[in-house]
Amino acid sequence: MELEQLYTDYAHCLDADELERWPDFFTEDCFYRITSAENYEAGLPLGLIYATSRNMLKDRVRALREANIYEPQRYRHLVSSIKVVEDAVRDPEPVDLVANFLVVRTMQDGEMTIFGAGRYVDRVRRDAGNWKFVSKTVVLDSRQIDTLLAIPI
Amino acid sequence: MELEQLYTDYAHCLDADELERWPDFFTEDCFYRITSAENYEAGLPLGLIYATSRNMLKDRVRALREANIYEPQRYRHLVSSIKVVEDAVRDPEPVDLVANFLVVRTMQDGEMTIFGAGRYVDRVRRDAGNWKFVSKTVVLDSRQIDTLLAIPI
Amino acid sequence: MELEQLYTDYAHCLDADELERWPDFFTEDCFYRITSAENYEAGLPLGLIYATSRNMLKDRVRALREANIYEPQRYRHLVSSIKVVEDAVRDPEPVDLVANFLVVRTMQDGEMTIFGAGRYVDRVRRDAGNWKFVSKTVVLDSRQIDTLLAIPI
Repeated sequence: MELEQLYTDYAHCLDADELERWPDFFTEDCFYRITSAENYEAGLPLGLIYATSRNMLKDRVRALREANIYEPQRYRHLVSSIKVVEDAVRDPEPVDLVANFLVVRTMQDGEMTIFGAGRYVDRVRRDAGNWKFVSKTVVLDSRQIDTLLAIPI
Repeated sequence: MELEQLYTDYAHCLDADELERWPDFFTEDCFYRITSAENYEAGLPLGLIYATSRNMLKDRVRALREANIYEPQRYRHLVSSIKVVEDAVRDPEPVDLVANFLVVRTMQDGEMTIFGAGRYVDRVRRDAGNWKFVSKTVVLDSRQIDTLLAIPI
Repeated sequence: MELEQLYTDYAHCLDADELERWPDFFTEDCFYRITSAENYEAGLPLGLIYATSRNMLKDRVRALREANIYEPQRYRHLVSSIKVVEDAVRDPEPVDLVANFLVVRTMQDGEMTIFGAGRYVDRVRRDAGNWKFVSKTVVLDSRQIDTLLAIPI
């Protein structure tokens, strides 16, 4: 199904560190946020990353590249249980979805750890024929993640 | 496919801690068991949880809620490799399936660990239009799991 | 989809330690290799396992069985984000695919660790009606894996 493909392409883009392509998964007026389950459930608007447009995502990538922090780790996304939230489906769009994710980090010395686990709470619509994220909220099970600079998840 | 959806809904139910909805994934005369691969292969009937009806699952949830052990961790299920066991398909039901799972636990201090890994060995049939588990055996790769009170997986 | 099924069957074969069936997932003239992302990106032909035919895979299994190293651990594969590489699709075959994997290892004392994470870079074609791997490259995110004798992934 096309929507599963969106998540697949998204995961491969991040895992290949092709961050310059990352904003293209979003609509121009998108909303993107990484937050904790605790803050999400409390309705707090805070976030490790908070963006309200595709341009802000592009700025984020530029900042990450310029920061140039030498962290030669690799990330691997496992995504499963992608689910269309039925009662939120409009006719025919946008579509609301949730999915579970796990991100494994491998350090250069070979140490592998769970970097983050949680769920995506997303809204997508077609944009010039392609499904894009209108809104993507990354809800981490933990309150924090171990990173110097917040990276896209 | 509808059967994948069953596993997706099941995972989200548990991860959202909506345990009161959990028995609804089963038929009234269901069988549910959590056991180790070691015991499973040896044909031992023991289990961390052992239930032979939906009512027993409801009792289990009630016990879990009443025990009220303060363990503010979160669980995240990753399910993949869902497979219909071809030679066990009846016409048209029930259907036998296996699937791999991984459960990640996040503690309140942010520590993330692998809580359990293993496979589901399941039988499903339609019950009033919805696919339900007639039988679900959670076969853990490890002999034990680190928890005070056995929770649904 | 049939190609997802191939990955599902492959994972269950390895997790059940049915290694004698493992070569059957490949064509007779297959290529199989386990390597690190670092070596893969550098174009180095090295690998933890390197085989250029199904017979070499059979030899590998025989060697593993004869070595008979007593490591009573269990492995569990989680595979997700299976993706057909569109620009590489021939008409109608072979088909190029990538997928993400995570392998969790459970030791006999119950300790669970991430054994390996990375991606499959594969080519498949139909062989007497069944999809088989013409080529399978296991690209590990880490430079090494913790094992005495390299096992199939």
